[in-house]
Amino acid sequence: MRVIETDALIIGAGPAGLFQAFQLGLQEIRAHIVDVLPYVGGQCAALYADKPIYDIPGVPVCTGRELVASLQEQAAPFAPQLHLGQEVTEFSTLPDGRLQLATNAGTQFTTRALFIAAGIGAFQPRRLRIEGIEAFEGGALHYYAPEASAVAGRHLVVAGGGEEAVASALAFAQAAPASLTLLHRRDAFEAEPAQLAELQRLRDAGHIRVATGQPTAFETDAQGRLSRLVLSHAEGPDTRLPLDLLVVRQGLSPRLGALADWGMAMERKQLAVNPATCATSLPNVYAVGDINHYPGKKKLILCGFHEATLAAFDAAERLVSGRKVVVEYTTTSTRLQGLLKV
Amino acid sequence: MRVIETDALIIGAGPAGLFQAFQLGLQEIRAHIVDVLPYVGGQCAALYADKPIYDIPGVPVCTGRELVASLQEQAAPFAPQLHLGQEVTEFSTLPDGRLQLATNAGTQFTTRALFIAAGIGAFQPRRLRIEGIEAFEGGALHYYAPEASAVAGRHLVVAGGGEEAVASALAFAQAAPASLTLLHRRDAFEAEPAQLAELQRLRDAGHIRVATGQPTAFETDAQGRLSRLVLSHAEGPDTRLPLDLLVVRQGLSPRLGALADWGMAMERKQLAVNPATCATSLPNVYAVGDINHYPGKKKLILCGFHEATLAAFDAAERLVSGRKVVVEYTTTSTRLQGLLKV
Repeated sequence: MRVIETDALIIGAGPAGLFQAFQLGLQEIRAHIVDVLPYVGGQCAALYADKPIYDIPGVPVCTGRELVASLQEQAAPFAPQLHLGQEVTEFSTLPDGRLQLATNAGTQFTTRALFIAAGIGAFQPRRLRIEGIEAFEGGALHYYAPEASAVAGRHLVVAGGGEEAVASALAFAQAAPASLTLLHRRDAFEAEPAQLAELQRLRDAGHIRVATGQPTAFETDAQGRLSRLVLSHAEGPDTRLPLDLLVVRQGLSPRLGALADWGMAMERKQLAVNPATCATSLPNVYAVGDINHYPGKKKLILCGFHEATLAAFDAAERLVSGRKVVVEYTTTSTRLQGLLKV
Repeated sequence: MRVIETDALIIGAGPAGLFQAFQLGLQEIRAHIVDVLPYVGGQCAALYADKPIYDIPGVPVCTGRELVASLQEQAAPFAPQLHLGQEVTEFSTLPDGRLQLATNAGTQFTTRALFIAAGIGAFQPRRLRIEGIEAFEGGALHYYAPEASAVAGRHLVVAGGGEEAVASALAFAQAAPASLTLLHRRDAFEAEPAQLAELQRLRDAGHIRVATGQPTAFETDAQGRLSRLVLSHAEGPDTRLPLDLLVVRQGLSPRLGALADWGMAMERKQLAVNPATCATSLPNVYAVGDINHYPGKKKLILCGFHEATLAAFDAAERLVSGRKVVVEYTTTSTRLQGLLKV
């Protein structure tokens, strides 16, 4: 198995992680980024992609999606290498002080510095609690929205009652499924008024059907393929919902995961850091953004930007130059402008 | 004399000061802002208004002017009251803990909290060293560019050899002066190539004349009005340059000024602050942005944004609620969105 050797590994591709890659780039340190989600942006992308943010300094208003796009564009000159849909699960320190990490997808890294920008933890989709159904994950069962092309001609069930489920159903209605059923425990959905109106229109037109009930079991056909969900109801007998593709969109739930077991000092369930450098108690490991704690800490995106900057300077001093790094300005430094390719 | 009573006074209308007003607004604290410059924006406006900045998080590139405009727009819902072209020169503490300040323009304030966002100090235009000429300031002598309407029909001399002087001369050439002379110690100017080309074009067309020499004295007419500058030269006798309006654009020079004498603890010639709150050693006085120091301090605009946020939270806890202020998010808090009028 190939081991990726790098100077910097960032866990978390949210705003703090993306800006960490930018600040490391200004210090001439290239970074790899791992994120458990299959897309960049962290909470901004997963929780409020289309919602407004008003307190990014110098940006009177932007959506989560727009902020992520801007941060990606800003980091682009440094081409951070993304490893998405993977969770870092293994961590150890090598005798020479370097850190060795591996993800649940089998990617291995050896890095001189680690930057934990994991926000409120690794986002995990809320899964169906049906014994044995995990065998279909990635095939007939998806917890993230699959490509529209995977939906055409299929008997699709979207499970969930919130905005994610409704938005997915509306999108898939355009992708020519053989049938499309929105499954929720009751016939009531939470989403933006415009989304709910569009859902009603598609229901009236017969393009989306709503099924209610609690999925408690599944059935397979003669070839072992997922063919029916068994739905329980508050009253009356179970019913069966035929399908050949199931997309579960029941929201994301964060958990700190393996990080909590690496032996780093914690405070208020966060990683305690030195506020001057954002260094954790483990050598060569920094923590920035919502996951860290220090006196005065505020869990705001703009604070993560500051923290990523301090961490990049400290890493540059310790890893690259071995001496105090002087602050230079992108406005006047031809070295920085060269790095930025402007 | 009217004394302005306020909860918050901010010294400095640069990026840190403007964002301080925004963050205080989110805490329902209204602020007055004093700045020595006759315009907002601090260094961004005075030193690099048209130059690019690449490291504002989420803004891949903007000019100093654009950043200032965005920060003004962001703070606009809280309508900070500006007192421009004034320097705070007097400071004292009242028995009840409030602070009393006065500017060199005679404006007086009583405030519960003071936020010093004075950057690298109060910008002072580099003045002419000619004894007695200060008597004309604001009349026949200006250190900031006057309105174009004040120039029409006048025999105008612009003094200086840098971009500020060249840009002023180019602008005033459009304002129908009776004559326009650019005065510098030698016939060589530093400005953008396009500006230098335009200067040459206007010189060739006879709209701008260049005079060289060192102004060392002035003469007045029978009514006591400024009528001539006496210019010394490396060789040969003095010459006389007739004029009735003199605009000196020799750049700005910062100085810490009166602040240095208020008894605040200093470190590395900066105001030492508690990094958790940005509080100085004086009660109810905070320092944010380039003027403060704490372990790990980096003189970057984005750090000032973080510091202003911490200071606003601390002031809100101590001045308004008397208890821990919970972090709310502009994306989800209806209270904050109400304050922002969105």
